Amino acid sequence: MSELLPNTIGMIKPVDKEAMAQAQARQDVLTKPQGSLDRLEQLSIQLAGIQGKPIPQIKHKAIIVMAGDHGVVAEKVGNYPQEVTAQMVYNFLRGGAGINVIVRQVGARVIVVDMGVATELEANPRLLSRKVALGTRNIARGPAMTEEQAVKAIEVGIEIVRAEVAKGLDIVGAGDMGIGNTTPSAAICAVMTKKPAARVTGRGTGLTDEQLAHKVEVVKRALEVNNPDPEKPLEVLAKVGGFEIGGLAGVMLGAAAHRIAVVIDGFISGAAALIATALSPGLRDYLIAGHVSAEPGHRLLLEHLGLKPLLDLGMRLGEGTGAALGIFLAETSAKILAEMATFAEAGVSEKEG
Amino acid sequence: MSELLPNTIGMIKPVDKEAMAQAQARQDVLTKPQGSLDRLEQLSIQLAGIQGKPIPQIKHKAIIVMAGDHGVVAEKVGNYPQEVTAQMVYNFLRGGAGINVIVRQVGARVIVVDMGVATELEANPRLLSRKVALGTRNIARGPAMTEEQAVKAIEVGIEIVRAEVAKGLDIVGAGDMGIGNTTPSAAICAVMTKKPAARVTGRGTGLTDEQLAHKVEVVKRALEVNNPDPEKPLEVLAKVGGFEIGGLAGVMLGAAAHRIAVVIDGFISGAAALIATALSPGLRDYLIAGHVSAEPGHRLLLEHLGLKPLLDLGMRLGEGTGAALGIFLAETSAKILAEMATFAEAGVSEKEG
Repeated sequence: MSELLPNTIGMIKPVDKEAMAQAQARQDVLTKPQGSLDRLEQLSIQLAGIQGKPIPQIKHKAIIVMAGDHGVVAEKVGNYPQEVTAQMVYNFLRGGAGINVIVRQVGARVIVVDMGVATELEANPRLLSRKVALGTRNIARGPAMTEEQAVKAIEVGIEIVRAEVAKGLDIVGAGDMGIGNTTPSAAICAVMTKKPAARVTGRGTGLTDEQLAHKVEVVKRALEVNNPDPEKPLEVLAKVGGFEIGGLAGVMLGAAAHRIAVVIDGFISGAAALIATALSPGLRDYLIAGHVSAEPGHRLLLEHLGLKPLLDLGMRLGEGTGAALGIFLAETSAKILAEMATFAEAGVSEKEG
Repeated sequence: MSELLPNTIGMIKPVDKEAMAQAQARQDVLTKPQGSLDRLEQLSIQLAGIQGKPIPQIKHKAIIVMAGDHGVVAEKVGNYPQEVTAQMVYNFLRGGAGINVIVRQVGARVIVVDMGVATELEANPRLLSRKVALGTRNIARGPAMTEEQAVKAIEVGIEIVRAEVAKGLDIVGAGDMGIGNTTPSAAICAVMTKKPAARVTGRGTGLTDEQLAHKVEVVKRALEVNNPDPEKPLEVLAKVGGFEIGGLAGVMLGAAAHRIAVVIDGFISGAAALIATALSPGLRDYLIAGHVSAEPGHRLLLEHLGLKPLLDLGMRLGEGTGAALGIFLAETSAKILAEMATFAEAGVSEKEG
């Protein structure tokens, strides 16, 4: 095993409490009643702590969308054929997917990564080919991948975010694409939050009651067959995870190592955050929950992580769509802190008594 | 009385159900599981109905911030001196307030209107001086204004939004500034939603428990002294309202008359929406709730209006800040509908079975 993962974990430092105190002090003298922008104020203060600057700046924004396939689709856990993963990658590259529209609106760049799509994809200058394997194996029958592959997936994520940092990066959103990937995410969520499969398994792309009951059984079987140890996050990722999930965990760790804020998206990037924070508990302070998705497990895992989502719009698309909206709010919060006038500057009277 | 108000009300037509059906049909073939963008899909469909176009466009965006003073500050209902209303108007004009930062981020223009600030303001080319009077009278002792002034305030709002429509306008947010204006808003909310004063009165800029109890008593007294009839919205506005509240009601009516979507902000613009929808129930379908504020009455009035807020960030600043964030989401929703590829265009397989 290379030293990249332990070295990266070693680089993750506590957020800067002094910068946070200075940001709080400035929020308190901006021309508004103290606390009246509540979550946006808190967000700006978190960004100050992450960046280690009293007035943080969000200028360079990226969404990293990682795609992978899942052997568990053999159990008929979803409604869409596996080929859709590859088709959606091409859609991302042409700019026609939901995430493309939202990143244009938000002024972010999108990085598309093949972490383990089950077919060979056509070469494209905008596609990062980092295939760990042609899809995972079926978690209902055995481990998704080897532990070496799990580490490899995380390392790819670290390397990709490091390359983005070199280009200029102030905040990154974690997006996913992978037909069937709510099933491994539910399995990870059940293990790490110690909740029963039925509570963390949802309808994904839109299952009927009967299909949902079957999916819960598949998640249960994956946990029984593999028996992953929640104290060993790499084992959990290898046994019931996915390549894009591992890659996103790496993105999170690599970003935090460079003091870059990470906006998590929905259930899949939330599952990646469970793995990543288990590897490095200090990562948590670098995470922002862009939204809470319609998947029931997502709300539970955010509570487990102690994160409060910014948005609750019933979204369940993935791709980083909720993360991209969260990036907009983070940038807005930073601009409020930087650009609003103080009471003294504006000649506005302060609170009486 | 001029014919402007009844004529405007007469111009408000039902939203276009056919355009909404076409927008829904397009949402259902875009490359995402059906319904997976939930609130953003619904928002785009509402915009289609408002604009009467299957693919609505949000390009020209404005926040109209109306300022007014309130005689009820004599009852010591708040923490800030009345002079802050005028000082904040100057802050808006210099670009240093919270709303200025957010409109820059959202790409909207801001229109600042003096509806009835208690002092004469310095002339400024960017300030619309439409003073109905130098502040309202004290609602704890009698009516806020005459019924002629109430109509005048609404008409000013109609005229202002009409001028903006002439410049190009696809969506408008309703913002307010007025020291003491959560008190008349609570009184309006109590009358129109038929809830007790204690349930609709909040801490405004940050009252203590004792100050809050006093404010509830002031709201109760305003209702007893004036006894406004909820069936007569102009009477309610005149007896317990404010000039900026009337102006914003006019903005809402005038916008809907021109098929322009209106994003309401917090408690004060919500109170304006209660008056405006009582004058024209059809207006409701033109309204978007940008957020729910920390004021308890705001949630109740949104429920009364049947509106579900887009954001819940604990904000309580006013100025149109929550509305401006809602405009961002509305524009995003319209772009998703317009720009995402369909399954056929992208060659993506549809749901099986």
